[in-house]
Amino acid sequence: MTTNEMQFNKRTHTCGELRESNIGQSVVLNGWVDTRRDLGGLIFIDLRDRYGITQVVFEPNFSEEAHNFAKDLRSEYVISIEGSVRKRPPETDNPSLPTGHIDVMAKKLVILNEAKTTPFPIKDKIDTNEDIRLKYRYLDLRRASVQKNLLLRHKMYQITRKYFDENNFVEIETPVLMKSTPEGARDYLVPSRIHKGKFYALPQSPQTYKQLLMISGFDRYFQIVKCFRDEDLRADRQPEFTQIDVEMSFVDQEDIFQMVEGLMKLLYKEIWNLDLQLPLPMFSFDEAMEKYGSDKPDLRFNLSLTTLNKVFASTTFKVFKEQIDAGGIITGLLANGCGDYTRNQLDVLTDFVKKLGAGGLIWMRVKDGGELEAPIAKFLTDEEKQNLIMSINAKPGDLIFILTGSRIKTLNIMGLLRLEMARRLDLIKADSPPKLLWVTDFPLFEWDEESKRFYAMHHPFTSPRLEDVKLMDSHPEKVKARAYDLVLNGSEIAGGSIRIHNASLQAKMFKALGISHEEAEHKFGFLTKAFKYGAPPHGGIAFGFDRMVMIFVGESSIREVIAFPKTASAISLMDDSPSNVSEEQLRELHIKIR
Amino acid sequence: MTTNEMQFNKRTHTCGELRESNIGQSVVLNGWVDTRRDLGGLIFIDLRDRYGITQVVFEPNFSEEAHNFAKDLRSEYVISIEGSVRKRPPETDNPSLPTGHIDVMAKKLVILNEAKTTPFPIKDKIDTNEDIRLKYRYLDLRRASVQKNLLLRHKMYQITRKYFDENNFVEIETPVLMKSTPEGARDYLVPSRIHKGKFYALPQSPQTYKQLLMISGFDRYFQIVKCFRDEDLRADRQPEFTQIDVEMSFVDQEDIFQMVEGLMKLLYKEIWNLDLQLPLPMFSFDEAMEKYGSDKPDLRFNLSLTTLNKVFASTTFKVFKEQIDAGGIITGLLANGCGDYTRNQLDVLTDFVKKLGAGGLIWMRVKDGGELEAPIAKFLTDEEKQNLIMSINAKPGDLIFILTGSRIKTLNIMGLLRLEMARRLDLIKADSPPKLLWVTDFPLFEWDEESKRFYAMHHPFTSPRLEDVKLMDSHPEKVKARAYDLVLNGSEIAGGSIRIHNASLQAKMFKALGISHEEAEHKFGFLTKAFKYGAPPHGGIAFGFDRMVMIFVGESSIREVIAFPKTASAISLMDDSPSNVSEEQLRELHIKIR
Repeated sequence: MTTNEMQFNKRTHTCGELRESNIGQSVVLNGWVDTRRDLGGLIFIDLRDRYGITQVVFEPNFSEEAHNFAKDLRSEYVISIEGSVRKRPPETDNPSLPTGHIDVMAKKLVILNEAKTTPFPIKDKIDTNEDIRLKYRYLDLRRASVQKNLLLRHKMYQITRKYFDENNFVEIETPVLMKSTPEGARDYLVPSRIHKGKFYALPQSPQTYKQLLMISGFDRYFQIVKCFRDEDLRADRQPEFTQIDVEMSFVDQEDIFQMVEGLMKLLYKEIWNLDLQLPLPMFSFDEAMEKYGSDKPDLRFNLSLTTLNKVFASTTFKVFKEQIDAGGIITGLLANGCGDYTRNQLDVLTDFVKKLGAGGLIWMRVKDGGELEAPIAKFLTDEEKQNLIMSINAKPGDLIFILTGSRIKTLNIMGLLRLEMARRLDLIKADSPPKLLWVTDFPLFEWDEESKRFYAMHHPFTSPRLEDVKLMDSHPEKVKARAYDLVLNGSEIAGGSIRIHNASLQAKMFKALGISHEEAEHKFGFLTKAFKYGAPPHGGIAFGFDRMVMIFVGESSIREVIAFPKTASAISLMDDSPSNVSEEQLRELHIKIR
Repeated sequence: MTTNEMQFNKRTHTCGELRESNIGQSVVLNGWVDTRRDLGGLIFIDLRDRYGITQVVFEPNFSEEAHNFAKDLRSEYVISIEGSVRKRPPETDNPSLPTGHIDVMAKKLVILNEAKTTPFPIKDKIDTNEDIRLKYRYLDLRRASVQKNLLLRHKMYQITRKYFDENNFVEIETPVLMKSTPEGARDYLVPSRIHKGKFYALPQSPQTYKQLLMISGFDRYFQIVKCFRDEDLRADRQPEFTQIDVEMSFVDQEDIFQMVEGLMKLLYKEIWNLDLQLPLPMFSFDEAMEKYGSDKPDLRFNLSLTTLNKVFASTTFKVFKEQIDAGGIITGLLANGCGDYTRNQLDVLTDFVKKLGAGGLIWMRVKDGGELEAPIAKFLTDEEKQNLIMSINAKPGDLIFILTGSRIKTLNIMGLLRLEMARRLDLIKADSPPKLLWVTDFPLFEWDEESKRFYAMHHPFTSPRLEDVKLMDSHPEKVKARAYDLVLNGSEIAGGSIRIHNASLQAKMFKALGISHEEAEHKFGFLTKAFKYGAPPHGGIAFGFDRMVMIFVGESSIREVIAFPKTASAISLMDDSPSNVSEEQLRELHIKIR
């Protein structure tokens, strides 16, 4: 019995395994010292591994040698102990632990490795700065709460793959070193050593490859795959992220919906033990925007917007009239029982919407008797007031918010105000059931004010609705896409579309996007060429797996469900990457730093 | 019924599904025109999808309209047909096809997409140049033989993950953007936009991460993961390749062997329907080298080397004596029944070994009566000749090859001659049972003549055998590693080791490798630091998945089991990557081409 770091008795059980049925057995456990209590005569160790915690007792009468060695133990030492299982004395019985009715009387102790004092305690609730946690991620990952997240992530991988396998999908790996075709986000580039001055790009998604696989006739493809975007990171983005990537041939939207819903039903059951009702609710983009001010509405609470253009159709109130004439929108939000909000509270909310770009926030209190008290009340007719109260379904004691302006922008701001009110009114409870839904019929194009051109809202391979193809030249803004998003608790967890599978429609699309024939050939030539050899109708979807796991495990940051995440400035605090490299490496790659 | 490329009747069945039990049913099939035979009155189409082929018949009496449209069909057109299933007329019955007893009488035909003439036929055996196949990979992937490979690869992914999941391994994704720590092969680098002059590297393997996961207490980890090496590619290497990566805590070699053997038994059964006998044969590195001249011996045929140093221990023949005195080796190979090889055949084989670096090839014919006929016969005593024949077990009509020189180099050359003789003698038959085995006890270090230093044969984290630690300073060349390779049919398909888990032994290892404390800190500081917080004993293995799939499907190039492979010069002929990128992209990344 010595401190021998290389040879050890292998465990007969894990630290989560022993029960009363093992009482009397001689066992070997390996693990980490979680806690140590030295009661003078007796030493108690909580021995920990991934599977659980077992109490180990060192008693001089039972083994003096082991007891002596145990005095040296400190938290996070790695040890191997041999001993016999006994029923715990009643006073130490711990029914909250699966192993809480037994402990192990130690006969032998081998210290496999010592441990310095960790920079933070290895326990669940710590208020350590996240940067310290990330620098010592290997210790942070010892905490049961983080392990639980990754174990659940593991389970979600397995459920997902089993589901697609059983549904005849083929798992196919697509290249990580591919061609740079920047459209939208920036590519990460990889210089070629063999081909001077040339570069690979890391995939933003396997989009082109999965379409080629449909052209190859694989019929049903899936992959859980790393993707990369060199963006200016927002708080909850990662430069590399994981996607469940899916594509099917000879299908329309309904087939994709059905396949995805089957997976979600399974995950609801296996992760949350909930029965998901199918089919899922479905909102068109226009409907979602008008009712919830968002293309990814959170329906865990009942607050909805009301479009008031009809109510004020013949108003003389200038602010409203101008917007109606200009094709803008007047949208209202009812805050139940908030009629007593103070001037100060209203000012804070006004600031909130102004920061988002609104001109101002119109508010009205509904008084007893149904009278409206508001700065703009004097500009409205009694009929308008009456109709407003009726359409928005207001009652005395309520507060009405109104925003007006250009349609999408104003609805988006009201959607954010809706979320802010839900937060203030504490409408999302810990036990609010999750809400999953489809948003469909997105616009095909998005107008960019800055560059004065249309961009593909989804991507340039998305098919327009068949009935809208005729509008592509004349009214591109009116064309709806065969695109859809899956929304869970107000987060987009998946997005997809039916693709264009026809070379001439694809050319029309590139034209509408202002992508010249030459540029299209240069960037996507291999894909458009492939379309000419017999492309089947096809479509698909991609899930943001990190975000999906985050919601399923109930975390609020994706870093909590990624083993080795990077910071918001794309740094790994653990290994200090990105880092400097040698001049020799750069020379071999034919590049230098400018 | 028109050429409408966007709307179509969705299939009721796939092209591999219909049987005699479906006769009389009205069905819709979607797929590609595989072949078309126009017999004037009748048109026969073989309609193809991933699942099979169904014969479709267009008869003017049954539907004149469909028959008229069918005249336009060409190979690889994508169509949707509606029709009724009937029993095939006896003269067209095809029992070799699962659908061969039925065909479908077409009532309606929709052409979903047309197709240009493909650059090569979509059929199994083609002699098209591989470059053309790779340029049009999406068409190459339509060929049933290539699809079969990827479907089997799909199956192997699922079997592998299910196995590790059932054995309590946790699937964890490790970063693709990591720190550059070149040791051995070159890293692919990724310039950082946010951090000027800094770079990420793509992983050559997740080695450091999986060791950190053991330090985190995940206990059992696996991942099927892309790895990257910027090497001068040999014919059958890819810049990106797939690895099954495995690591376990509190284990020794035996535990890893047992776990791996369980997976291999499963794959043998599910892919080959063979019962693998366990435990697998095991050879030490020294034994494998002496018997087969290889650390990855192919045991599908019975040819083994014989070390002849004892036979010639007191020889006066200068060539042998010099090598024996210098610690070299004399190794012999018996070629049964090759005693009649012509001078020309022997010259070719002499050239073969000379090209590999041998000084020459010694040969001896065994004549009737056991006499040796050889250029060097006159230098040997009768006793030496007799002992040679006995030790190598030669019979009249046989041929003996002898090589002599420095130990490892000479054995390697003889190993290659062994393979060459197997090829010439056609010893590996199509139905030779596969041979799987372990090679263990590799040297820890490999001496590099050029740089006059030791390198880690496996990697710098590999543990020496415990009994050899004391030799690390004095006789590093004698130290054996706790490292092992899994060899299938003469290919290394997996390699691993028990790792060093102790900071001071790791420091000793870096010292032996001539890695300074500063360099070790700079490159691996985060790992050596982690070792100080309680690292458990651990070890693992990594499978070269592409090569493993290649052997299981019976192909001779890994490009045949990768959906979108690159050429030997790391180019994707399909999309022309690597390619030029814009000056703007380079400027954003703070690099320029030198």
